Amino acid sequence: MIILGLDPAIRTTGYGVIKMLPGCRAEIIDCGVIRNTRQMPHSECLRRLAGGVRELIKTFAPDCASLESPFVGDNANTAIILGMARGAILTALAENAIPAYAYAPNVAKRAVTGASTARKEQVALMMANEFGIAVSDIPNDATDALALAICHGQKALFSSIDLAGKPL
Amino acid sequence: MIILGLDPAIRTTGYGVIKMLPGCRAEIIDCGVIRNTRQMPHSECLRRLAGGVRELIKTFAPDCASLESPFVGDNANTAIILGMARGAILTALAENAIPAYAYAPNVAKRAVTGASTARKEQVALMMANEFGIAVSDIPNDATDALALAICHGQKALFSSIDLAGKPL
Repeated sequence: MIILGLDPAIRTTGYGVIKMLPGCRAEIIDCGVIRNTRQMPHSECLRRLAGGVRELIKTFAPDCASLESPFVGDNANTAIILGMARGAILTALAENAIPAYAYAPNVAKRAVTGASTARKEQVALMMANEFGIAVSDIPNDATDALALAICHGQKALFSSIDLAGKPL
Repeated sequence: MIILGLDPAIRTTGYGVIKMLPGCRAEIIDCGVIRNTRQMPHSECLRRLAGGVRELIKTFAPDCASLESPFVGDNANTAIILGMARGAILTALAENAIPAYAYAPNVAKRAVTGASTARKEQVALMMANEFGIAVSDIPNDATDALALAICHGQKALFSSIDLAGKPL
């Protein structure tokens, strides 16, 4: 099973592609970020996010996607913009019939570090250790996306289906 | 100039297509709603919104789009979902190189009724009067979308460009 992890945001969306192996182990296939500049209008950012996700689907043919469930703060303006990024990404996934699941950040952190309050740097270190990659080479948004992919792999394959993330 | 007005929401997105004529008059081409049921998962709603907008673009070849700028309430959860609907729609517009502009509801209301606090029913009546259509046949979401299209037509064509809506 190939899983595409995605940490959506309008400017920098992290992605991580993994293959689940027997024994609850995972192999890294690719990770990185889809990056938009601050100067780009939202329309262009959304076009690039949807196009980037389509490209990942074409290249890696994932069976499913695992997204961070949105952190809902007090700022509704920020929420609208985060929602737009998620909308562009979920549209590209749905148009390619890739089922998507959402996990709260603390659930993904616990899945990979054992601690639901782990910092981004700890998640990155665990990912580097798991996959034998140099953590300094990879943005935290990409290691967060890898953690989301692993989280779904563990929950969907090796736990009760009741523990899997919310289907979107 | 053909303008596509859109009033985005996850369940019911109103649309209205108009052609601007000489003398600040407008001709209606089509209006209606893209409707999703309450039972549909968000992914499916977004797929249908993007597909519906693409269909409208293919059929009517609009020069630009006019959207309601999001009403930002206190509820960040609602804002995320509204943002997702906007994200799916703006992606479809951007992928077809259709420039999109946003107008606050009170600006669109004032453009068509003269009153920025007009109720939805008043907007619908004005639209029925303007276009010679039976208001009872058309959902308010569609007449709101027509009002947004007219608002942009007035601002972009017949006023100073400074008065035009926010490009998205």
